[in-house]
Amino acid sequence: MSKVIASITTSIDGYVTGPDDGPKFGLGRGGERLHYWVMGGPWTYEGGHDFAMHGPDKEFYDELVSTMASGVVGRGMYDAAGAWGGTNPFPGTLFVLTHRTADAPPAETGFRFVADLDAALDRAAEAAGDGDVAVGGGADIIRQVLAAGKADELVISTAPVILGAGKRLFEGFDRDLNLEIIKAYSSPYATHVRYAVTK
Amino acid sequence: MSKVIASITTSIDGYVTGPDDGPKFGLGRGGERLHYWVMGGPWTYEGGHDFAMHGPDKEFYDELVSTMASGVVGRGMYDAAGAWGGTNPFPGTLFVLTHRTADAPPAETGFRFVADLDAALDRAAEAAGDGDVAVGGGADIIRQVLAAGKADELVISTAPVILGAGKRLFEGFDRDLNLEIIKAYSSPYATHVRYAVTK
Repeated sequence: MSKVIASITTSIDGYVTGPDDGPKFGLGRGGERLHYWVMGGPWTYEGGHDFAMHGPDKEFYDELVSTMASGVVGRGMYDAAGAWGGTNPFPGTLFVLTHRTADAPPAETGFRFVADLDAALDRAAEAAGDGDVAVGGGADIIRQVLAAGKADELVISTAPVILGAGKRLFEGFDRDLNLEIIKAYSSPYATHVRYAVTK
Repeated sequence: MSKVIASITTSIDGYVTGPDDGPKFGLGRGGERLHYWVMGGPWTYEGGHDFAMHGPDKEFYDELVSTMASGVVGRGMYDAAGAWGGTNPFPGTLFVLTHRTADAPPAETGFRFVADLDAALDRAAEAAGDGDVAVGGGADIIRQVLAAGKADELVISTAPVILGAGKRLFEGFDRDLNLEIIKAYSSPYATHVRYAVTK
């Protein structure tokens, strides 16, 4: 049975980006510290970078993506990541939620632009077959998926930084939900926890 | 060298209590789920309870309190906990920050009422000697200690619940701080992370 797995990295104070996130400052000013675990250590927006996870971070990520067969992200994340250089680096097709579909990239990039979250989830589930659907943010999409009761898992990586500003994962979220801890991983750069959302 | 160690339990969405916290509903409505790790499982405000930690929760707690020699908490937490039955259950003297000092309990309870945070920290440090000072909340006191640069460690226990309302640990906090992960512990009831605050 295909699952919907929402995952994102936050600061200790619950921000998924610092201020001014976007194409210039991907995760916002100061937000690059959120992804030290992805890069295997300190990096900058200017310096270029590649995924270089290791240890518990890599173990966590490899286990997470091992069942992924498609994904859904928001246009903000897609743009902020510079469309990951023009090719989807994640398993399966990545459905990008956007109201601006005129500049949709060609199919061979592995991206599809979709205007509606329910349609994106449906198409991602179809594309995933027996595999899982990754929901990768931004925060607003994760909140919508949680509020609609469509997330089977919530996966949060917490980086050891307090940002004090930016976009907050649970901004305006007013639901009460029970979860169960499936597994936790700890590295110097993040604590990763996989939660099952109790239905 | 004595350290100041601020520790608190939050929900996944960053609340340290649910709504209506206080003497009747200690951690707020629904907030008792924050402390399943303290009680060793589900409990209710009505049912009475005792500390019954085990496994990683007990390991975490025992290590945390092993160096504690005094503490500081807010009056809100003191009242919400019913003054822990009238006797301080924590190591050393517990300084309670309050503007209402008229009803201060006798010294043999292990509590001291103090009207000012700096004075409370100073008196707690003096009482601790070479031991550490625990700062145990509420959220406003932890924010003040962090903002003043007086916390050497921040310790957060995250319970697997999304509350959607209540008192948020980082409400209004706008500082940018770097931390280092000292140690993480994981149980079915919480993920505990000890962070050093980088000065």
